[in-house]
This record gives sequence, structure tokens and C-alpha cells, in this order.
Amino acid sequence: MALDHGDPGDAPSTPPPLTPIAITTRPSAADEARTIAAATNTATLATLTADGGPWASFVTYGALDGQPVLCVSRLAEHGRNLAADPRASVSIVTPELPSDPLAGARMTLAGIAERPTGAEADAARDAHLAAVPAAKHYIDFSDFTVWVLRVERIRWVGGYGRMDSATAEQYAAAAADPVIPSAARAITHLNDDHADALLDMAKARGGYPDATAAVCERADRYGLDLRVTTPRGIAVTRIGYLAPIDSIGELRSATVELTRVSREG
Amino acid sequence: MALDHGDPGDAPSTPPPLTPIAITTRPSAADEARTIAAATNTATLATLTADGGPWASFVTYGALDGQPVLCVSRLAEHGRNLAADPRASVSIVTPELPSDPLAGARMTLAGIAERPTGAEADAARDAHLAAVPAAKHYIDFSDFTVWVLRVERIRWVGGYGRMDSATAEQYAAAAADPVIPSAARAITHLNDDHADALLDMAKARGGYPDATAAVCERADRYGLDLRVTTPRGIAVTRIGYLAPIDSIGELRSATVELTRVSREG
Repeated sequence: MALDHGDPGDAPSTPPPLTPIAITTRPSAADEARTIAAATNTATLATLTADGGPWASFVTYGALDGQPVLCVSRLAEHGRNLAADPRASVSIVTPELPSDPLAGARMTLAGIAERPTGAEADAARDAHLAAVPAAKHYIDFSDFTVWVLRVERIRWVGGYGRMDSATAEQYAAAAADPVIPSAARAITHLNDDHADALLDMAKARGGYPDATAAVCERADRYGLDLRVTTPRGIAVTRIGYLAPIDSIGELRSATVELTRVSREG
Repeated sequence: MALDHGDPGDAPSTPPPLTPIAITTRPSAADEARTIAAATNTATLATLTADGGPWASFVTYGALDGQPVLCVSRLAEHGRNLAADPRASVSIVTPELPSDPLAGARMTLAGIAERPTGAEADAARDAHLAAVPAAKHYIDFSDFTVWVLRVERIRWVGGYGRMDSATAEQYAAAAADPVIPSAARAITHLNDDHADALLDMAKARGGYPDATAAVCERADRYGLDLRVTTPRGIAVTRIGYLAPIDSIGELRSATVELTRVSREG
């Protein structure tokens, strides 16, 4: 039995689908984590103080194959902490949080911080500078050290009830989603001008033949997340494209195709 | 000798003031930390995993006399961590970071998380709900616990070269600045319409009689931070009001007064 929140008795219930969902493919937890890592350049680092206590501090980072590249001063507490014990964790929050912060996506990467050497040192320095241009003013100061977090454990939380873990191997093999960061305008367009098509998708392919409205909440390389209204309540469902896409430019033809097959019945 | 960054040789130098600065009063590190704590409702929590490693995770919080009030599920890793070892730290970043993230203000609070009891439990619950309205949907779920972080150590970083520590006593006795969060429009007005007055302040009271331009970067209850341009380079200086103010509504008369005394010579 899966653990679930203890229900105080008044939690809204979600209506289940009435028919099979055609294509449920979606980014893996590792893909989601890589997407968040690629979306910003600020994080919070957790390190261990001299007495083994946890220490949270704000940092900037670049990413080298998804692994955070930090540039911290040994004069700062987190720099001293890493030098004494390289165990570290970073929490990264997706930019543009919704008004309910816990509905937003975030993740934790945990592992060991190492000073890169040789060619990796150059690549790590470049990755940090590419993400944090202002670092050019201090990255060569003698008290600053570049660290690569060797990610061993990944915990992704996509919002309420959407969370999963990933292994280091899964994270290394994953990729940032090419569609999510640039989909905002296309989603607005779908909702403003093609609500009828979204509703047809929800009815024919999303498992909710009783849907009366459908709103697109997200588009990624594998499909759309739709929030559907039914007489039984509100649910979230998945409309996978007929084939994955590689860029936002392919979203229009993918949704036109979905509309066509939804209306063929 | 104070530790300083190892200079690679090309760091810009800051011209020192040529005359005494009239009033240098500014918020303490504890006041600055309280101001950040009051400015938002999201933080990153650092806790200890079962094997004593650091774990960074996104949380929401309210504040009870500046002490973060968390509401976390024991089903989440950070909830399990706190239950096993209550040592904790939170990092809070001021909203609206500048384009160079490390120029922004942030702080770390470290201490021990405790479950409040009695009247404090009610006050903590209310403080969390006031800051995080969505928590009403889950705060009474049986797996959620309200924790108050008993703050023992404070580290504030206001930006490059502006940082200080504070004790628990200083933090408890401090107060959030009533002017900083609402000063943006007034600062724009000062810079757009009263650049001559700011320049006169910088010359007469800010220590830079050779200033050729002055831009207000911040206003707080004790005064203004000005960035001054001189033939010797760019510096930041302080223009304290003749008396502290308690609200943004008093800023106009305080700056009119500063302009008058600056021009009296």
C-alpha cells in the first residue's frame, strides 16, 4: 500500500478516467530534474558545519551534463564547509513559481562536491561563466574554488502529488525538455483559440468522455497536461502526441494531428 | 587583519570618502535579516539525512517573531529528517533578485526545529496560514507537522562585500524595516526628478565633495544608499536622515530636510 496523506475528511476527490488514456508518455523524473537544472542559475546549497549541522546558503551555478558547477569562496561559511566535508545537496526551484508556491516544480540533488581537474576543470569553469556572467569578476580570485557536485541521488517534486526519485545513472542519461521552457505562448494560444480542440482531445483520448471543458496546463516534448472539468469534478489528464517532438516549432503540427485523430472518433 | 579576497590584480578600486560622512546609521544585520524574513514565504530548508548528510529542500514558511514556522509532511524526506534530528537551517532570498544574483540580499538562519505547544502552537499555525494561504488545504492532514525553527545563528549577506552575523538575541530584538519593501517608487522618483538634490547630499554629507552624479540604490528607515560617480571612480555612500522614519509616508519630508541641510553648506 502506498503511503498517502492522512485525510481529515474534506479533501476534494478526483474523478477517475472512464475510458483508457490513449498515450500516457511523459518526461521521467530525471528528465524533469534536468529541465529544472537547465532553467535557472541560482540554487540553495546544503553543507555541513564544523559540528555536523546543516547549513543552507544561496549560490549561483552552471551545469555540466546536469551536474551543478559552483564557484564559492573559502572565506564564506559554505566554502569552508565543503573544504572540510564534501557532502552536499542543492535545491533548485523552477523560475516563475505559481501563486501557490508548493504547486511549482523543484528538486533536490545530493552527492559529493569535487574540485574538477584537467580538461574538466576548464569545462566546469566555462559552464559556470556561461550561466553566471558576473562570475568573471571573481572566479579567478585566489579564495574562490570551482566545485562540481557529483550527483548521487535526485528527488523531483513537480507539484502536489507529482514527485519521484531518480538514480545518478537515470539523471546522467536524461535530458532537459526542449519544449517546456518556451511553451508559455503556445499554451495561451491553445487555451484562447482552440479550447474546442482540447475538449475533443480530453473526450476522445484523455479518458474523460464526460468532459465539459479542458485547459492546457503544460506542454512538453511528449504531450500536453490538461485540466478537465466534468460533472463528476475536476481532474488532470495526459494527452500524448502521436510522436515526441524536439522543439517548440513542432508543437503546432503535433496538436493539429491530435485534434484530427480525436475528431475521427 | 581582516581576510579579504585574493586579488588577481585587476579588481576595480573604490575611491575613499574625502570628508566625514555626516550620519552613517543603517539597519543592523539582524534588522536586515528580519526584513528578508518578512518579505516572502518561500525558503530552502537544510536538514540531515539518516546518514548525517545535508539535504536541501524547498519549503514555505510563515514567521513568528522572525522565527520560521514550517508545515511539512512526515512523508517527505525533510519531514522524516526533522523528526530524526531537529537541527535545521533555512536560507531565504529576497524577492526580485537583481540580474547579478549575488548582488541581491539573502540570509541563513540556523537552529533547532521544535514542535510548538499550547498557545504557541495556535500562534504558529496562524502565522503559517497567514503567509501561506494554500496551507489551509493540508495543514490539518495527519501527516503534516508544524515546526518552529528556534533561531540560534544568523548570517546575512546584503550583496558583494556587505555581510555580517547576528546572535539569536540580536535577531529576536530586531525588526523588519518598514521602508525597504515599499520604497521602489519613491527611489525611482528621487532618481528621475531630484538627481540634483541627491548630488548635493553626496557632496555635503556623503563624503564625496568631488561627486559628479549620485543615484539612490536603496531607502530604509535610517537613510539612503547612494552610488556616487567621481573622477576617482565609483563608490557607494550613506546619507542618514536627520532622524529615523517609521513608514514610507515619511520619506518625502526626510529627504526634503536632507536636501535643505545639504544646501546650507
